[in-house]
Amino acid sequence: MSKSIFYHAGCPVCVSAEHEIINLIGADNVEVVHLGEVRNRIEEAERAGVNSVPALVTTTGNVLHINFGASLADVKG
Amino acid sequence: MSKSIFYHAGCPVCVSAEHEIINLIGADNVEVVHLGEVRNRIEEAERAGVNSVPALVTTTGNVLHINFGASLADVKG
Repeated sequence: MSKSIFYHAGCPVCVSAEHEIINLIGADNVEVVHLGEVRNRIEEAERAGVNSVPALVTTTGNVLHINFGASLADVKG
Repeated sequence: MSKSIFYHAGCPVCVSAEHEIINLIGADNVEVVHLGEVRNRIEEAERAGVNSVPALVTTTGNVLHINFGASLADVKG
């Protein structure tokens, strides 16, 4: 993929991390996905290896779990 | 501070995260500190709010804990 993807769920730690990530790598280089709003992408995130949000999936497919905001189970619940 | 600081302790997850961070934000924009080798900077990391490594302290002073490699207690031990 051409952009990193930042998955989050709108929690305060997610929003804070989102601002930092955008500052660090630039808004043009990251797609932001709010899994609480775009719930049909939860499965895609799981397949990418995301265990918790916020998480950044890089263009090389590696997953960086950032802090520990909420588990995907919480997002689903 | 003018650069972000990436603290790690040489563990495999740290090295992997380091490569991703450098790819994402550029080697010129991040100082890499190996706390296992530069032990006199552990206190500095703690004061910055680092609870575990790998962690990235941004130029705005926020701490992004990435994955969960090793606690600072382990690094000290």
